[in-house]
Amino acid sequence: MTTTTNPSSLSISLHNSTNGSFPKSTLSPGSLHFGPISSSGRVSLSSSSRVRSMVCSSSTQLTPPELVASSSGVPAVVEVDLGTRSYPIYIGSGLLHQPDLLQRHVHGKRVLVVTNTTVAPLYLDKVIDALTRDNPNISVESVILPDGEQYKNMETLMKVFDKAIESRLDRRSTFVALGGGVIGDMCGFAAAAFLRGVNFIQIPTTVMAQVDSSVGGKTGINHPLGKNLIGAFYQPQCVLVDTDTLKTLPDREMASGIAEVIKYGLIRDADFFEWQEKNMPALLARDTEALTYAIKRSCENKAEVVSLDEKEGGVRATLNLGHTFGHAIETGFGYGQWLHGEAVAVGTVMAVDLSHRLGWIDDTLVKRVHSILKDARLPIVPPESMTVEMFKSIMAVDKKVADGVLRLILLKGPLGNCVFTSDYDRDALDQTLRAFCKT
Amino acid sequence: MTTTTNPSSLSISLHNSTNGSFPKSTLSPGSLHFGPISSSGRVSLSSSSRVRSMVCSSSTQLTPPELVASSSGVPAVVEVDLGTRSYPIYIGSGLLHQPDLLQRHVHGKRVLVVTNTTVAPLYLDKVIDALTRDNPNISVESVILPDGEQYKNMETLMKVFDKAIESRLDRRSTFVALGGGVIGDMCGFAAAAFLRGVNFIQIPTTVMAQVDSSVGGKTGINHPLGKNLIGAFYQPQCVLVDTDTLKTLPDREMASGIAEVIKYGLIRDADFFEWQEKNMPALLARDTEALTYAIKRSCENKAEVVSLDEKEGGVRATLNLGHTFGHAIETGFGYGQWLHGEAVAVGTVMAVDLSHRLGWIDDTLVKRVHSILKDARLPIVPPESMTVEMFKSIMAVDKKVADGVLRLILLKGPLGNCVFTSDYDRDALDQTLRAFCKT
Repeated sequence: MTTTTNPSSLSISLHNSTNGSFPKSTLSPGSLHFGPISSSGRVSLSSSSRVRSMVCSSSTQLTPPELVASSSGVPAVVEVDLGTRSYPIYIGSGLLHQPDLLQRHVHGKRVLVVTNTTVAPLYLDKVIDALTRDNPNISVESVILPDGEQYKNMETLMKVFDKAIESRLDRRSTFVALGGGVIGDMCGFAAAAFLRGVNFIQIPTTVMAQVDSSVGGKTGINHPLGKNLIGAFYQPQCVLVDTDTLKTLPDREMASGIAEVIKYGLIRDADFFEWQEKNMPALLARDTEALTYAIKRSCENKAEVVSLDEKEGGVRATLNLGHTFGHAIETGFGYGQWLHGEAVAVGTVMAVDLSHRLGWIDDTLVKRVHSILKDARLPIVPPESMTVEMFKSIMAVDKKVADGVLRLILLKGPLGNCVFTSDYDRDALDQTLRAFCKT
Repeated sequence: MTTTTNPSSLSISLHNSTNGSFPKSTLSPGSLHFGPISSSGRVSLSSSSRVRSMVCSSSTQLTPPELVASSSGVPAVVEVDLGTRSYPIYIGSGLLHQPDLLQRHVHGKRVLVVTNTTVAPLYLDKVIDALTRDNPNISVESVILPDGEQYKNMETLMKVFDKAIESRLDRRSTFVALGGGVIGDMCGFAAAAFLRGVNFIQIPTTVMAQVDSSVGGKTGINHPLGKNLIGAFYQPQCVLVDTDTLKTLPDREMASGIAEVIKYGLIRDADFFEWQEKNMPALLARDTEALTYAIKRSCENKAEVVSLDEKEGGVRATLNLGHTFGHAIETGFGYGQWLHGEAVAVGTVMAVDLSHRLGWIDDTLVKRVHSILKDARLPIVPPESMTVEMFKSIMAVDKKVADGVLRLILLKGPLGNCVFTSDYDRDALDQTLRAFCKT
């Protein structure tokens, strides 16, 4: 069956947190609190420029597991509600064998598939078939990039432009990103910049891309000095998640994606976190039903947040829990050495450690985070070569620095609540960095 | 005095052209005709996907010369009306000595001025002074790029990102483009892509940039195979035109900018064209009043068109009269060999030649175009090395190609009317190319 979440009907109200029993005295004065979702009304972020932190509490009205689409081939659909830039996320098994799903979103007659050396042998022919079957007017070109975060740079991006221009693609062309987060980010930025913008479609083939990076329009490349520093907010025409592509995903990539699934539970969806605690073995065993549910619920969470704050003026930043520390690891240790989700897992542990030092969360939550990450076979300490100074210098160019001050996403209150704030004790941050680094 | 044009109050109605006496039989069936501007109503472009050509007639309600701001230091203001992305264009003498004009549009505390080796010695200190006077919280960095169209590429763009990241600029920073069209296009694209978008301000110092490229948000860089193929639509916070900067402009650059001034007359503003025919000597002599009037009226024309069609879905394309042929000359002859306006002048002659071959304009207009371009000391034939094949292969990757078909802006009807169309005789285009090339 098909189920749809329409985030435009959700409301975020401004009030003090009343969830759970966590002492109110730990909440900053002047915090902007995002409370539980109700059935009407609209979010107001008008005072955000004066507000330095936000508390975001659990989402409570998402689809329960029994309502997720079966493997019958009928996709579940999650809508990303962004006015004229709205688009569907299709989730299900066998979707690459349903040409209509893709073809209805192709504009013009020319398509450029952007993929990599790992994914091309597995799925490129399937995608070309899905684009062209019973559709003789469509011509498809492809560009196959090297695989890995270390290639997410301007040099590789230029190969996409070269291919597009040599193939004489025009403004009515469509780019298709076939691969993981690196391919999605690069293809999306190429689509944003080619001829000042052409349409594009995301076909994510990793858990990381399916639950997070393919949704919401963040595109870009890395700079030698920092992750994702060059890019665009640019939304796709649709996201097509064929869960069958996960059958060929290496275990390490699987775990990396689960780091982002865990994130959604921690920042805004306590029920989902509790579901993950019980179902981690099923996820790692690639149980289709468990995976499909985790992907769909993750996309629902992401779609809600993106619909409220497309350009990351506020609440969207909370999706970066663990990412400031994590990006420092990716940049400092060398792009491609660790997978993104591995770095985010350690970054999450560090953010949780800092939250606890600040007295904002209790022991139990710290232990649960360690436990679930270990169950997911993710690392919980940074590479030995990372130093306090490396963390500090790389974090200083993070996109969440504003007027020279680093803002962080930290947990605060009961499970499912977080803040995005510059209002934390710098000594506590130093203590966290020292606790995780040998020098 | 300050005069303001508010393009949101202008109306474009859909009807057959009734201007002038040109025979109706020359108009394509199904053409979308843009008639004279009235005082209410809104444009409808809803049927544009089915429409292959548009006739755009003269603008008739622009500011007459006597209403242009004097050189008293009070700027004329032209508003670009784009909803939340609206911004003012300030035009006048001595504006760089009015710090408030700039400072009111600076967001955050950090500014990066992007300029080139020619402009920096002349105006960088003045701009830094204007940004920082009585404003101790602002810190200004600058990056000085090599001067010329041949440097409008990814390699030079990366120098801007490098400087921004090394200077630890964050999302609340402001970029300032100080220079001609190349600097404005590159700085604007850098601002669009740095951290997925920071604010920027245009301070154009050439006629070309003041009357055209700094207004409307087209940003980008060249690719070895074609002009402006990589970029973004990204609007500035304001455009500050200090006409005093033209005192140091070389004659060839002056003439190059006038090519775009002439364009506005030809495509939509017959009165302005007639004014130019009378006042070309004053413009070339840099008469302040004549220059200020020409800049303001050009900006009013551009602001109107951009407000109606920001992303170039239709009428905005008409601003590219002569540019498809002109870009082929710039790319084929080598970036930086000819100035942009020189190539556009020849491109305009070629577009006019084709329009005449098609029977869409009469002899008199052809002669008037030749005459005004010669008066402006602009070339009217392409470089000898340009061949028919070079024109064809470069024009095939023009951004106005759609589903493989090249659309052109051509004159049709009396002075001040044009069409954007793919509905023209290919043989006539061949004849035009052969008439202007030796091989």
